[in-house]
Order: sequence, then structure tokens, then C-alpha cells
Amino acid sequence: MNILVLNGPNLNLLGTREPDIYGKQTYADLEQTIRAYCAQHGIGVEIRQTNYEGVLIDWIQDAVGQFDCIVINPAAYTHTSVALLDAVKAVGIPTVEVHLSDPYTREEFRRISYIRDACIATVKGKGFAGYLEAIDLLRGLLK
Amino acid sequence: MNILVLNGPNLNLLGTREPDIYGKQTYADLEQTIRAYCAQHGIGVEIRQTNYEGVLIDWIQDAVGQFDCIVINPAAYTHTSVALLDAVKAVGIPTVEVHLSDPYTREEFRRISYIRDACIATVKGKGFAGYLEAIDLLRGLLK
Amino acid sequence: MNILVLNGPNLNLLGTREPDIYGKQTYADLEQTIRAYCAQHGIGVEIRQTNYEGVLIDWIQDAVGQFDCIVINPAAYTHTSVALLDAVKAVGIPTVEVHLSDPYTREEFRRISYIRDACIATVKGKGFAGYLEAIDLLRGLLK
Amino acid sequence: MNILVLNGPNLNLLGTREPDIYGKQTYADLEQTIRAYCAQHGIGVEIRQTNYEGVLIDWIQDAVGQFDCIVINPAAYTHTSVALLDAVKAVGIPTVEVHLSDPYTREEFRRISYIRDACIATVKGKGFAGYLEAIDLLRGLLK
Amino acid sequence: MNILVLNGPNLNLLGTREPDIYGKQTYADLEQTIRAYCAQHGIGVEIRQTNYEGVLIDWIQDAVGQFDCIVINPAAYTHTSVALLDAVKAVGIPTVEVHLSDPYTREEFRRISYIRDACIATVKGKGFAGYLEAIDLLRGLLK
Amino acid sequence: MNILVLNGPNLNLLGTREPDIYGKQTYADLEQTIRAYCAQHGIGVEIRQTNYEGVLIDWIQDAVGQFDCIVINPAAYTHTSVALLDAVKAVGIPTVEVHLSDPYTREEFRRISYIRDACIATVKGKGFAGYLEAIDLLRGLLK
Amino acid sequence: MNILVLNGPNLNLLGTREPDIYGKQTYADLEQTIRAYCAQHGIGVEIRQTNYEGVLIDWIQDAVGQFDCIVINPAAYTHTSVALLDAVKAVGIPTVEVHLSDPYTREEFRRISYIRDACIATVKGKGFAGYLEAIDLLRGLLK
Amino acid sequence: MNILVLNGPNLNLLGTREPDIYGKQTYADLEQTIRAYCAQHGIGVEIRQTNYEGVLIDWIQDAVGQFDCIVINPAAYTHTSVALLDAVKAVGIPTVEVHLSDPYTREEFRRISYIRDACIATVKGKGFAGYLEAIDLLRGLLK
Amino acid sequence: MNILVLNGPNLNLLGTREPDIYGKQTYADLEQTIRAYCAQHGIGVEIRQTNYEGVLIDWIQDAVGQFDCIVINPAAYTHTSVALLDAVKAVGIPTVEVHLSDPYTREEFRRISYIRDACIATVKGKGFAGYLEAIDLLRGLLK
Amino acid sequence: MNILVLNGPNLNLLGTREPDIYGKQTYADLEQTIRAYCAQHGIGVEIRQTNYEGVLIDWIQDAVGQFDCIVINPAAYTHTSVALLDAVKAVGIPTVEVHLSDPYTREEFRRISYIRDACIATVKGKGFAGYLEAIDLLRGLLK
Amino acid sequence: MNILVLNGPNLNLLGTREPDIYGKQTYADLEQTIRAYCAQHGIGVEIRQTNYEGVLIDWIQDAVGQFDCIVINPAAYTHTSVALLDAVKAVGIPTVEVHLSDPYTREEFRRISYIRDACIATVKGKGFAGYLEAIDLLRGLLK
Amino acid sequence: MNILVLNGPNLNLLGTREPDIYGKQTYADLEQTIRAYCAQHGIGVEIRQTNYEGVLIDWIQDAVGQFDCIVINPAAYTHTSVALLDAVKAVGIPTVEVHLSDPYTREEFRRISYIRDACIATVKGKGFAGYLEAIDLLRGLLK
Repeated sequence: MNILVLNGPNLNLLGTREPDIYGKQTYADLEQTIRAYCAQHGIGVEIRQTNYEGVLIDWIQDAVGQFDCIVINPAAYTHTSVALLDAVKAVGIPTVEVHLSDPYTREEFRRISYIRDACIATVKGKGFAGYLEAIDLLRGLLK
Repeated sequence: MNILVLNGPNLNLLGTREPDIYGKQTYADLEQTIRAYCAQHGIGVEIRQTNYEGVLIDWIQDAVGQFDCIVINPAAYTHTSVALLDAVKAVGIPTVEVHLSDPYTREEFRRISYIRDACIATVKGKGFAGYLEAIDLLRGLLK
Repeated sequence: MNILVLNGPNLNLLGTREPDIYGKQTYADLEQTIRAYCAQHGIGVEIRQTNYEGVLIDWIQDAVGQFDCIVINPAAYTHTSVALLDAVKAVGIPTVEVHLSDPYTREEFRRISYIRDACIATVKGKGFAGYLEAIDLLRGLLK
Repeated sequence: MNILVLNGPNLNLLGTREPDIYGKQTYADLEQTIRAYCAQHGIGVEIRQTNYEGVLIDWIQDAVGQFDCIVINPAAYTHTSVALLDAVKAVGIPTVEVHLSDPYTREEFRRISYIRDACIATVKGKGFAGYLEAIDLLRGLLK
Repeated sequence: MNILVLNGPNLNLLGTREPDIYGKQTYADLEQTIRAYCAQHGIGVEIRQTNYEGVLIDWIQDAVGQFDCIVINPAAYTHTSVALLDAVKAVGIPTVEVHLSDPYTREEFRRISYIRDACIATVKGKGFAGYLEAIDLLRGLLK
Repeated sequence: MNILVLNGPNLNLLGTREPDIYGKQTYADLEQTIRAYCAQHGIGVEIRQTNYEGVLIDWIQDAVGQFDCIVINPAAYTHTSVALLDAVKAVGIPTVEVHLSDPYTREEFRRISYIRDACIATVKGKGFAGYLEAIDLLRGLLK
Repeated sequence: MNILVLNGPNLNLLGTREPDIYGKQTYADLEQTIRAYCAQHGIGVEIRQTNYEGVLIDWIQDAVGQFDCIVINPAAYTHTSVALLDAVKAVGIPTVEVHLSDPYTREEFRRISYIRDACIATVKGKGFAGYLEAIDLLRGLLK
Repeated sequence: MNILVLNGPNLNLLGTREPDIYGKQTYADLEQTIRAYCAQHGIGVEIRQTNYEGVLIDWIQDAVGQFDCIVINPAAYTHTSVALLDAVKAVGIPTVEVHLSDPYTREEFRRISYIRDACIATVKGKGFAGYLEAIDLLRGLLK
Repeated sequence: MNILVLNGPNLNLLGTREPDIYGKQTYADLEQTIRAYCAQHGIGVEIRQTNYEGVLIDWIQDAVGQFDCIVINPAAYTHTSVALLDAVKAVGIPTVEVHLSDPYTREEFRRISYIRDACIATVKGKGFAGYLEAIDLLRGLLK
Repeated sequence: MNILVLNGPNLNLLGTREPDIYGKQTYADLEQTIRAYCAQHGIGVEIRQTNYEGVLIDWIQDAVGQFDCIVINPAAYTHTSVALLDAVKAVGIPTVEVHLSDPYTREEFRRISYIRDACIATVKGKGFAGYLEAIDLLRGLLK
Repeated sequence: MNILVLNGPNLNLLGTREPDIYGKQTYADLEQTIRAYCAQHGIGVEIRQTNYEGVLIDWIQDAVGQFDCIVINPAAYTHTSVALLDAVKAVGIPTVEVHLSDPYTREEFRRISYIRDACIATVKGKGFAGYLEAIDLLRGLLK
Repeated sequence: MNILVLNGPNLNLLGTREPDIYGKQTYADLEQTIRAYCAQHGIGVEIRQTNYEGVLIDWIQDAVGQFDCIVINPAAYTHTSVALLDAVKAVGIPTVEVHLSDPYTREEFRRISYIRDACIATVKGKGFAGYLEAIDLLRGLLK
């Protein structure tokens, strides 16, 4: 199984940004956590981060034929991007949405997720472990 | 793995009720489909239906120690029951929500799902196959 | 013609409950009024009351093949039950909704009726006589 | 029994207008269908159509003493005319509202019906047959 | 001083329509009340009623040069007609809006008055006497 | 005739405050304009200004038996004070509400006027002349 | 037990103001009713009224160490004053909110009560007797 | 090419009505402007104005077979008439909506246009020239 | 004094369910706390729990003649049950609503309480002690 | 005449994406259709697609002096981009908005179009032919 | 530089009021903190507190010619006072708004700030230090 | 002190774009104004413009360690970008938001500013001078 893990804007600042919400671990720690887990379970994985909505769309489109499934944390674009929703719908690759914190406990505009409608599942409020749970969910589906 | 499949009000009438929305297969067909799939994959399963919100809550509570996970189609209670949300949160058993049709394309009040907040995933608009996809998602998680 | 008359929560307290809204006649008086009218017009009738949403759904489902039409006063469940709407839609029996008072002149949440969408007509604000008008409407339709 | 059937704006174009919503039968077909049904059941009937809100109000007012009941399809005025509501309330003639299609499945502003509050019943989504069902409902009531 | 008194749809039915809201006096009584008051105060008056929105607009436009001021009870068109608002604005004749009952205590959609924005004053909830109070207000202004 | 003219918060700064909205004339000019007009028409007048909501209420209450009518520009309290509405209702003295500018063309919260419901008329967008028009309206009513 | 009873704006006009809502008894009658009841039950009481929001806040703050509990009818300030809510929260004295009529049956803006969130109970729609019920509730709590 | 130009309520008062919004040119000037432009481009044109919603609907219906396209300024009926929307949809004649001013900068209820959904284009805020731009748009389409 | 204490859905799971919100004490602890307090104050008490809305209604109805007052924690039914509101209104027994946590700090749909309108007081956010405060409030009232 | 045709995110996937909504023709087919039509009518055309909001803005800005008009299908950016609206306003080039399907029949958030306010016309629900109709509209205007 | 520091209702209770929100330091501590900071930076300062909206307006008006800038914590009046907004606008003195806590994390009605529109900056959620930051901001501006 | 000045989409067109809103000065004039002011006050400054949301995020992230503070005019992204809000929060650099015009007087969707929540101050409606005021505010803070 080959997984594409996509991270949206400002996630590269993890560990420096609002630690009471996102914890003290850095983005490098996140990559390391995911890679170790995938290696241990024999899963191929590629992890990317960008601040551009358009780049995320390109990556989702280019995943066709390259990856079996996608784990995406669209960060702020969760709440404002209809184009990401359309991209996931268009490529038809099983996708799970991940959020480090529970958007419910923050500003009201963070409760809207456009991309959720095209995703199989949403994992939120579990920190780094949420990425691993997303991978587990996809494993059940693809086996 | 031991799964509890719960069905809410009026699902016992499947096949007789609004066939253009729910198809022509009966509730017995649904049970048969799920049982066959679980037998084939070595999964223990128990399937129940009730028209009572309170009975659904009792069943969720009693699942503790009896079942590893729950697949629930709360039907109309999806949109009106906060108590089901609380029950799933309280027992802490991994749960997937299933809907035969996509509530989006129907009346506006069917777009609200209270229970979704306590579920790992929502599968909708895939008919009977949605129950099987829910089982697959839970298998990945529990392995 | 065989009619099933269903009454929802707290209607058994009629005559004791908020007499300025519902009048001073008791639930027994209501049953008597309906029975006398049906006897006079050669209509078979069964009248039931329950405080349970689930029981109302069971009764609607079981009416198939037993009754030609339904008169229902869902009381408070009018405003909160999507499951009753689904039940009436599913069985396909001609149904008329009755309310003793006009919900418009009370709290705002009493203006919503989910079940109305599946009913042929709504009679409101006419007290006990509303049940009889509902029966008359169904007679025209079934003749 | 003497029935007045009123049709609102653009219904004279039936059969030419959006056939996927209203079907291919013309307004002349509608008149013919209603007349045949009334002749068969010994009901007197008069059928009129106008594009003017004011004319509909005049006709409702003039119906007093001339007709026993009214079947009205206010078409677009359903959603915008409070004056029609007042007219039906004022004359006190039993009235049933008819819509060829189900307004629910169209634009959101078509879900509002002012006149419904003064009508005994609403028949919708049944095409020409809805007019006949409306007549049946009124027959039960007036017998 | 020359006053034009305009009455909107269904006001010709006064005395027959919902007497608990509008009282038992007829439209002829209303005309008589206004005429007597104007005669007594040496005011010229013309009183008209129509069920047509378009006719009300024509009358307002034609009032230019014929009348010093307008008293208007637009009835149901109060809540739905932007065209009446534009007509009063366009002719620039001092206008007072009158309602027999207080729209506040009725359905919510009766609380909106488009025409109010172009009127000098609104008199409501005072029955026939409201027309006389409107005339008094205009007298103060035009002296 | 004896009139009480009340001015709310910040009106004492007229001429210094946002001249593009309120013009360049000062509060002293306003008092002078009103006094001259009343003198000319033989009307007794008292003009007061305060920044306190409570003081405005006291003055309205104390007007009973002292003044025949009230002209009030509640300024910012127009949009936030239910207590002023209650005060005008309680004393039953004919009152006209005045605004120098048209609140419609400013922030949305300035479109709400609680006190309007207890006033005979509202004059807005006419600058100082609006106070004189208010006085004229009251003269017609009290004669 | 020592109780402070506070009354907000316009309550001093009781008996003169909208008698169909508030009854015909005067403010002096209210004071007399409360004093008699407290004397009879051996409760110390002080009753005050003001039209100023600021004065009510001062009185609530000064109650610390002087009174065991507060009964407050904030009248119109119920619906507009956040500062009263903060005052009651800040002093931490058990407080019961009283309204003579039921705000539900009046204008929509009267349904909001900011102070309710800091009060132990709300007694409404019981006229003068509501003050006595409030005192009874506090007696149970403080014993 | 044969164009029907329709003007709604109060447009006959152009030049007299709110000149700061609509300019000082009269309705006769408007007709002259359109006629000159059409003559110059060899386009047949008929221009009509009415204050009646029903007349506008009649004219749209009667345009079938007589005109190639319609330019309509529904004025106030833009914001309240669903029947005009239905009429344009029903006849299927290419139609362009014109407004002299930009409704956006006026009251909020003027931002709604029902008819827009059935029109090919909307030209607004360009005064008389907007009619000519509408004609140009239709020429491109019909060539 | 005889008190009926009613607990709604999922409260039997106290101590196991979301301990950061509800604390670690179990439902048995809650019963023990209430019984000890009542014994100490010479109050008769009966404590019940159910997951069924209908059972709560039955219990409230049956309380007539058996209990002097009711303390109810409707849990999730607080936010969705109009039938409970009607039941409390119908029986006329003094009732206090209790919530362990403050619904304000949780999801928005938990801020609505239908039953509150029929209750004398609401005690929230005080854990088990809230039940005792509710009993104290009722004692003051019933003495 | 020189036209710039711009396509927004995911349109490059046409033919692969949700064929029941967008049809089975590919993006290459779309380009071919437009090019053939322009060649036939002697119109210069350039067609571009991008997934980046910023690129669309750059292209609109750079069109000044290069193209006479713009046809744009902003796809998902229709509903979320204010920057595109500003860009079209800023360059002042006649622009027509195109959508393959009618956004009305899909999710509610697809009904908002920011860019529409700066466009001359909107063509929707006509598939590839909509681009050609847009070109026709611009031809009429620019001739 | 001469600064006027204004504090609104209940701030005099600082240290006693909801310490988990506002901290344990008293109002005297706050005054001391500000005075020390101003002395150290050679800034003249006057600090006042009141529970009256009217007094705050008086103080803002009287600041003209006396103070170079204003730091204001309107407390509860932030959310309800349009008059304070008007006062700050009228006097034209540079003003910074301060809140001890972040209103976002409290009740929804605390998110509205009328005065913000007239202030140069808002400092929130920084406790006493927020007053000092406000002073720093004004120093940059006035130098 | 080292300042980074960031400008969002379409600001490079200043002077060409809607001059009645933004004035006639060009973007080069803006850069010149800021540079001259900074040179005069010994402040280091870098000024950038982009049409890409992602580029603005990159620049904000890269400012860490390079600049002491940021002045940003996000233009249209003010109203749609949550990612910019997160970026400013994440880097923790003091930031002031600038708008040339007052968004309040334009379309309603321009009143929302996501980034405001992370900014120290907002300067609007002052044209180019607003940038300089923003710099002054930051100078006070950083000294």
C-alpha cells in the first residue's frame, strides 16, 4: 500500500505555533512519527507540505496512479477551499481528513469543512496519533 | 473481531419504503448481506433493529465488553437525537455511522447528524455496500 | 372504512392540562366524541394514546392491512420527530394530522411540523371537532 | 356540490413550459380532465385562469353564495401573496391548495406558501390527479 | 385641504372578515366615519378600495395635483409590495400609513412594511379611529 | 400647546461631530431654531439634552401633567434602549421621534429603533427642519 | 435573613402603565405586599427603584455584607444590560430574577435575559406574587 | 431583429422621481433614446410600460412569435415577483434584465432579483445606456 | 416533603463517561449523596434513571398525588424534547432542572432547554451539589 | 476580436470527474470546441487552465491591451474568491462568467458567485455550448 | 503626553470577581501598575472608574483639550453601548480599547464591540499588561 | 527597527482601479510614500506585493528573525483567508492590518476580516496615510 500524506499551510511551523493548541513537537517530529509507523507496517509513504492551495490541488491530481490513498490535513484551507473538495471528488482516491486539534473548540469558522464531504473519515483532536489512525482506517478499506 | 450492527426506526420496512430512494431490497436482504460478508471474513456479528431511541441507547451501553466496535444506521434519529451522541461518547467503542442514501440530496433537516461527532467515519449514499465499507474501516483500525 | 386514531404524549391528561389552551373536556370525552361520530357514520375506529415515540412508529407500521387511513395528533412529537414522518411515508396509508389548538399562536418551535409533509391535510385550532373534520376529509378520499 | 377551480399565473402555458417539471399535457387537457371527473360524479364546476393577483382575489370574494368550495393552484403567487391568504380567510369557503409538482424539490423560495394557512389541505406533486384528489377531500367534508 | 384615502385588498369585506381582529363594522361604516369627520372639519376627501396592487399605484400617481395628502391602508400589500413604496416616494405627496389592527400581534410576515419608509407616520391598532388620527397628523403638517 | 424637546447622548457636540453627517450648525443653533419657530406659532417649549439614559426616562416620566407632547431625538439610545420605549408607552403622551440623518444609510445596527413602536411618527434625514416637522405633526393631532 | 429587592426602570409607574399587561395595582401596593410578607415571616427587607442602569449596579455592589440575597426585576434592562449580569456574577450573592408578566408573550426582544445566567431562578408571569415566590426560593436555599 | 422592451411600475415617472438616483431625464427621453438606437441599427422595437404585474406577464406570454428577444426593467417587481420569473422561463425567449441604478447601493431587499435566474444577462448601474448594452448583448446572441 | 428525582439518558454511566466534564464519581455515588442529604433533612425521596423519553413522561405524569416536587436532570433530552416540557406543564408539580456541567461551555445545541420554560429554577455547573441546591430551593417554596 | 478563455481548478480533469454532472467529454474536447468555433467566426482566442487563484489573477491583469474580452469559468473559485472579483473590476475588460452545470442544483455554497458582480452576463447549465454563447454575447457588445 | 484611562462597570471589583477569568489582582493594583509605568516614561495620567454609561460619555467629551489620548476598558458597555462609539467619534481623540481577557472565549454576545469602530487599536487577553501596551501604541502615534 | 510591508492581490493596479474608491495615486506612489517616511525616521523597510495567498504566507513565515514587525494590506484575502490569520499567529511578530478604504461602506462580505484577530491594530479609510499611521503604532510598541 502506497500512501500520500499532504499537509496544508503553516503546518511546517508545528512546535513553534500556539503550543497550547498543537503541542510542542515539530513538523520534523511529525514526519518521523509517520515514517516510522509506515515502515513498521510495510506501507510506502510520501509526506509533503505547502502553503499554496493550488499546489495541494496539483498534488491530489498527480496522485492518480501513484498512490492508493491520501491522508490530508488541509489546515486553514479546510474551512475556505471548495477547490480541494472538488479535487478529491475528481480523482476518486480514498482520502481521510486529519486535524491535530478538535476544530469545534475554536473559532466558529473552523467548524466548517468543505473537504469532509469527499472524505471517507475525519480524525480530529488526537494530535500526531490521528495521522496513524487515518492510515489504519485506510488499511482496513484497501485490504 | 465482534461487531454490533444497529438499525434505527423504519429500517425494518426496507424494500417497501420509497424504493426510488432506498432500492427494492428488503431488510432481510440487508441482514443476509452483512452476515455473509462477516462469515467470509471471520467476523462475529449481531444485527438488531428497533423503532425506539431508548432501546438504541440501551444496546449501545450494553455493548461494553461484548463487542469490539459498532456500525450504526440511526435513520431518522440521526437528525434529532443528542442522546445517541452521548451514548456513543460514553461507551468509547469505535463506531461508524452508515446511511443508505446521501442525506444531502433530501430535506434540509436531514443534513444534521448529531452522532457524527462521536463516530470515526461516516459512510453514506452507497446502499447496502456502505455497511460493508464501514466494517472494512473498523477492521483496519482494530488490527 | 376502518380508521386508526393515534394520540401522542400527554394527551391522556386532557382536561387537566392548561385548560385555557386545550379546554376542559377530558381524554375520555375525546374518545367518546370520536366513537359516537364513527358509529353514526358506520366507520370502524380504534383509538390509542402513548407517551412513546417508538410506540407510535410501531402502531403506524402495524396499521398496514388493518386500517384504511390514520388520524394522528402527535402532540409534542409533531415538532421533534423525523421518525414519525418516515413511518407515515413508508406505510403509504392516507393520513391526516390534527392539532387541538393552532400551534401558530404558541411558542415558535411549535410551528414546525415534520409529519405534515407526509400527510394529506392538517386540521388545527378546532378542538375535538378537528378529529371529526379529519375523518370527513378521509371519507371523501376513500370513497 | 358546486366547485370553483382557480389557476394562477402562467398555468395557461401548461405543456409548453418546462415539460420536465410540469409534463407535456396542456392547460386544455387539464380543464378537460377536471370537467370529465366532475360530470362523472355529479359535481358542478367552473374553471378559470388569470395572470393577475387582483383578479384571483376578486374571484374568491365573488364566490360567496355561488360556490360550495374552492380548489386553487396559485402558482407563483403561492410564494408571494399575503392578499390571497387574507381573501380565503375572509370568505370562509372550504379551500384546498393544489400544486402540480412538489415545491420542495425546486428553489428555496418555492417552499413558502402563505395561502396554506387558510386551506384545509394541500395536494402537491401529483400532477393533474392532484386536482381530483382535492375535489375528493372536499366532497368528504361537505357531505 | 383635499385628502385621498386608499384601501387595499379585502378591506371591502370589513365586518364579515375575522371580526375578532377587525371588529364588526362594515366597509360602508368606515367610509361613513371618514366622510363625516372630513365634512365636520371642512376637508375634501375621496375614498377608494381595490384588490389590485397596480390600481393602487395608478391612483397614487394620479393624485399629483389633485390631492394634498394621502392616507393609505395597503392591507396585505403592506408586507409584499415594494412598488407601492416606490410610488409614494416618486410622487412626493405627504402620506400616512394606517392599519386597523396592530400587525405585531399577528403572523411574523405581517411585521414588515415596505411602504413605511416613505410615509410620515404609521397609525396602527386603533380601528377606524386610526384613519381620523392620520388625517389629524396631516392637518398639522399642511397648515 | 406645551412641548418638551429631548435630545440624547452627544447631541450637545453638534457641529463638531462628523460634519459630513450632521452638518456644521451647533447645538445652540438647534435650540435657537426650535425656540424661534415655537415663539412664532405661540407654542410653549422646553429643550433639554443629556448623556444619560436614566435621565431621559426621568424627564419623560416627569412630563406628565407638564407637557402636551414630546419630541425626542434619542441619538444612540434609539438603537439600544428598551427602557425609553417603555417610558413613552407608560406616560401615554403623544411623542414624535426625530433623527437628523437617515439611519438607513449608516451602520446596520442604527436601523433598529425600539422607541419607534411607541411613537406616533418618525421624522428622519431632514436635519434641524425635522424637529419643526415633528412639531407640526403634533399640532395637527392636538388641535 | 436580609433581602434586597431591586426594581428597574418605569416600575415606579405601575398601575398607570399598560394595565392589561401589568394590572391596576400601583408601585406602592407592590412595596406594601412585599413588606407585609417579609414582616410575617421575620425577614428583613429593603426595596428600591431606579431608572438608571448604573444605580442598579451600584446597589448590587453595595449589597455585599449588607444583604443575604437579592430579588431583582430589571424591567427593560433585562434585555439590554450585560453590566447587570456582570454585577451579579461579581458579588456572588444568591439572586432571583422576577418579571410581572411572561416576556414570552410580548415582543421578541423581550425574550432575551442577560441577567438570567447569573441568577438561581427566574419567576415570571405571576404578578406581585412572583416576588413572594422568589423570596420563598431564597429562604430554602439560605436555611 | 425584433425587440420588446418592457418597463415596470413607476418608471413612467422617470425624471420626476428621486433624481439623485435615477437622473433628470424623463420616460419620454428613455423611449426616444431606445428608438433612435434601434432605428440606427435596423432593429424593430416596441416599448411598453405598466404598473401591473399581471400585465407584464401577459405581455411576456404574448411575445411568443412576435418578438425575437426581450429587454425588461421590472423595477420594484424585480424583488417581489416569482410570477415574472416563471413567465420568462415558460416562453423561452432570450431576455436581458436592466436596472438604471445598481440595486446593491440601496436597501437590502433590492438586492434580490427573482427574474435574474431566467435571464441571459443583467445590466445595472448604467442609466439609459444600460438598455442599449442589453440590446447589443442580444444582437450578438441572435446573429 | 416527598421528592422525585429523575435522571435522563446515559446518566447511569456517570464516572465512566467523559470524566473531564462530569467528574469521576459514579451514578451510585450520586444516589448515595442525594439519599444522605434527604435523610438528614427529613425529606422523602425516590431516585430513578431511564434512557427512554417516554418513560420520563410516564414518571412525571404518575407523580401526581405521590410527590410534592420534582428534581429532573433530563440530560440529552433537555435539548430535544418538547414532550417533557408539556408533561411538566400538564402536571403542575413544582420542578427544578439540574445539569452537572454548564451546557454553555459545550456544543451550541446544548444551550437550548425546552423544559426550562416549565421549571421554577435551573441549577447548572455545580456537579452533584446542584441536586442538593435544587432540593433546597424547593424546600423554601413548599414550606 | 481577441478573446481570453480562462478555466479554474480541476477543469483539466473534465471527462474523468463526476460524469453525471459534467458529461464525458474531456478538457481537450472543450478546447477543441472553442477553437473550432472561434476559427469559424474569425475570432482570435487563447485558452488557459490553472489550479491557482493567484495565476488566474495574474492572467486577468496581464490581459489588458492583449485581449478585447474574457470568458472565465472560475470553477470552485467562483464561490470563495473575492480577489477574482477585484481583478475583473480593476482591469475593466468585458467579461462573461460560464459554468458547465447549474450551481443551483448542487450544494448550497455553490450558489454564491463573487465574480458575478463584475461580469456582464452569466451562462450556466449549458455544458460546452455555454462557452460559445458567452462568446456570442461578447461579440454583440464589442461590435 | 497626557493620557486619560477610563474603566467601565464592575472593574472596581477586580480581584474579587471571577478570578479564573480576571486574575487575583485588585483594582488598586491596576491603578498602581499604570501609574508606575507612566511615571517611569514621563507620561501624565488620570485613571477613573464608573458604573454609569452616561458618566463615561461625559468624561470622553470633557477630555477635549485636557488629554492627548484615551485608553478605555468599557467592560460590559463594550457590547451594548452605541453611545460610547458616538462619543469617541465625536471628540476625535486617539483612543485604544483594552480588555483584560479575550472576549472570544466567553459568551457569544461578548464578541460584539461597538466602540472598536472608533478606536485605533484593540488590546485583549493580556491582563494588566494590556493597558501598558495600549499606552505604548499611543506613544508611537503621538510622537 | 526593520519593517516588512506586504500588499495583497490587485494592489499593484492602484491608480487604475476604481479611482473613486482608491484614489488616483499609483502603486509606485505608495511605495515611494512609505520609503520616504521610513528613511526620514531611520526605519528599515521592505515592501512587497503578490497576487498569491500562498506567497503572502511564505513571506510572513520567512520574516522571523528578519523583521521586527509587519504592516499588511491583504486586500481581498482579508475576507477569505484563514491561512493568513494562522500565519500571523504562528510567527508571533507584531502586525498591523491596513485598508485604504473603509470596508464598511462597501459590500457586506468585505466587513469580515479573519486576520484582524491576530493583529494589534487595524487602520482603515485613510488612504496611503494609513500605512504611515500603522508604522507609528508599531514604533510606540517596539521602543
